[in-house]
Amino acid sequence: MTQGTDKTDKTALRPEVLFTVGPTQMSPQTLACAGRQVPYFRNQAFSDVVLECERFVLEFAHAPQGSRMVLLTASGTGAMEATVTNCLDASDRALVIVGGGFGRRFSALCERHGIAHDDLELDSEEALTQERLAAFEGAGHTALLVNLHETSTGQLYDLPMLSDFCQRNQMTLVVDAISSFAADRIDMAASCIDALIVSSQKALALAPGISLVLLSPRMLEERVARITSPTLYFDFADYLVNGTRGQTPFTPAVGIVYELLERLRRIDASGGIDTEVARTRTLARDFRGRIAELNVGAPSFPMSNALTRVILPKPVAGETVRALAEEGLFVNPCGGVLGERCFRVAHIGDLSEKDNAQLVIALGEVLESLGA
Amino acid sequence: MTQGTDKTDKTALRPEVLFTVGPTQMSPQTLACAGRQVPYFRNQAFSDVVLECERFVLEFAHAPQGSRMVLLTASGTGAMEATVTNCLDASDRALVIVGGGFGRRFSALCERHGIAHDDLELDSEEALTQERLAAFEGAGHTALLVNLHETSTGQLYDLPMLSDFCQRNQMTLVVDAISSFAADRIDMAASCIDALIVSSQKALALAPGISLVLLSPRMLEERVARITSPTLYFDFADYLVNGTRGQTPFTPAVGIVYELLERLRRIDASGGIDTEVARTRTLARDFRGRIAELNVGAPSFPMSNALTRVILPKPVAGETVRALAEEGLFVNPCGGVLGERCFRVAHIGDLSEKDNAQLVIALGEVLESLGA
Repeated sequence: MTQGTDKTDKTALRPEVLFTVGPTQMSPQTLACAGRQVPYFRNQAFSDVVLECERFVLEFAHAPQGSRMVLLTASGTGAMEATVTNCLDASDRALVIVGGGFGRRFSALCERHGIAHDDLELDSEEALTQERLAAFEGAGHTALLVNLHETSTGQLYDLPMLSDFCQRNQMTLVVDAISSFAADRIDMAASCIDALIVSSQKALALAPGISLVLLSPRMLEERVARITSPTLYFDFADYLVNGTRGQTPFTPAVGIVYELLERLRRIDASGGIDTEVARTRTLARDFRGRIAELNVGAPSFPMSNALTRVILPKPVAGETVRALAEEGLFVNPCGGVLGERCFRVAHIGDLSEKDNAQLVIALGEVLESLGA
Repeated sequence: MTQGTDKTDKTALRPEVLFTVGPTQMSPQTLACAGRQVPYFRNQAFSDVVLECERFVLEFAHAPQGSRMVLLTASGTGAMEATVTNCLDASDRALVIVGGGFGRRFSALCERHGIAHDDLELDSEEALTQERLAAFEGAGHTALLVNLHETSTGQLYDLPMLSDFCQRNQMTLVVDAISSFAADRIDMAASCIDALIVSSQKALALAPGISLVLLSPRMLEERVARITSPTLYFDFADYLVNGTRGQTPFTPAVGIVYELLERLRRIDASGGIDTEVARTRTLARDFRGRIAELNVGAPSFPMSNALTRVILPKPVAGETVRALAEEGLFVNPCGGVLGERCFRVAHIGDLSEKDNAQLVIALGEVLESLGA
């Protein structure tokens, strides 16, 4: 699929490496799984696969007893929309944390579906603080929508702070953990999260195409059971009924479900989700340590283990991203105001400290050649 | 992925064969593609892939000049819902051909989205005729929704007849070709089709996860440009704007898009879509010829090349499907009233006359053992 495998340059052993947030570098085990015939799925064999995936995902999210998983064939945005429309309705007033492109997406979804909402807007370099939240205390909001990690800026929000806020204000808590699941510690039960959104192509490092929504018993009973989905394709009621026997109402991305099971079993066998999160944290710290020797910066707010936003001393981010890609090293550009001075480096997927070292050496050379 | 690869029985060389309608048997070339790292996609390399896919798909559908493709990460039902909501609105009155489960789905989608509709209901063994259509002539319908091949019963509808009906009655024509594209001849231009829906896991024989909607210039100008999508995830306007540069608004199932390009190039290199349709027709006729020697029947209405519904002399369809699966030969059960006496055999995917022969021999043995 990648053209670079024919290269005979210095990176021949590992011709292209994805430091992108999604798709991420897939492991040989996942690739072996992906290369197999997709089997028929309307049978017990596939039901068993789905049910085992659900058990693992709920366990890894520390979901409260009685939680359920909805398995969607959709990008993360599809799952965000499905969650907004099945878990909120016109009687709600949502508070949306808008710290970048993905927060704005939650806001746009509320707008599209007639859900009243206020947006807590952050500057791209501004940390979400108790002081900023205080303005919304006791203001009658019924739900908080947050991207635990705002992937466009790199900020990881303070989950205990948000959880306490929701508890005090009796708000349901909807968390997009698309780029945090398996990278940052998440405890649905302890943090009273009512809906958690996960996608295949981030820290799970699978092919993009499926997303998962985990629902707490409270969310299931008090909201999903009461709210009528405006769409058929994203109707949680239908998924939940079919899901009790490990099936989906419509043909799922069967191949990626098999990749998911293989990955979840491997996380389990390697010591569980805490070990996986620790591995990612170590990799992130390793990278952040290495770039300290270059003339670059990083944001001052808390960062997810999933990625580091690198801030350059000169506006040469576009050239830097392109030059690294020519070396087979793929990083994510930033959009908007961050675009000229920043790019993003992921620490999720099948990466090692050796990959970090290779990237940082290449980055140093590129910056030197650009006079930055 | 399939467990059967460890089997050491008589079918060891090809341990499991999918005669199912989707997923279908994938070719070695597709599997090789599927087993490769999913690359980063927000760049020109991926844009070029998407644009080449669009050119091929429009060509293979004989789409009129100026048609466009929308690339969705969703099952076929997602694409059906996206089409209904972006191409119809409350000012419409649709006529839905309901000849089985998939026709009922179009009807349910109209219902969910407040689109007035009348259903032309067929019995499971009833052919759609000019006489049945006549009752709806000049009745003020604005759109016809039809599954070209009603996959739950096996019926292929008469496209020229439906097209003439739409032309006479000035109706827009929406065709679900999910199980017909690349299996039955389709000419969007000649049949004045305004929207054509395709999915990855049928005759294209790719992993399930992406669906395509092809839109005629008339549909684009007169409807899509005017109608506001109720959802963000399925908002065609957004896909069409991004699609001009070969991108999608949200992360697509990148891996399957690469499978798609490889498959489209292979169809092109093998003589084009007409050759592929002819190959499937030959395979279907071969199968239908072979079962003529068994004590089974087939429907009397026109059938798609994509599958044959086999009608058994006794109500042993469930046992038959299970016994064949034990041999590694997977066929589709039928739902509802057809369930006890019928099952379905697909002729799409990487199948050969040798596979047909193996299946028919096994079927003969199973029926004999069941006394049917």
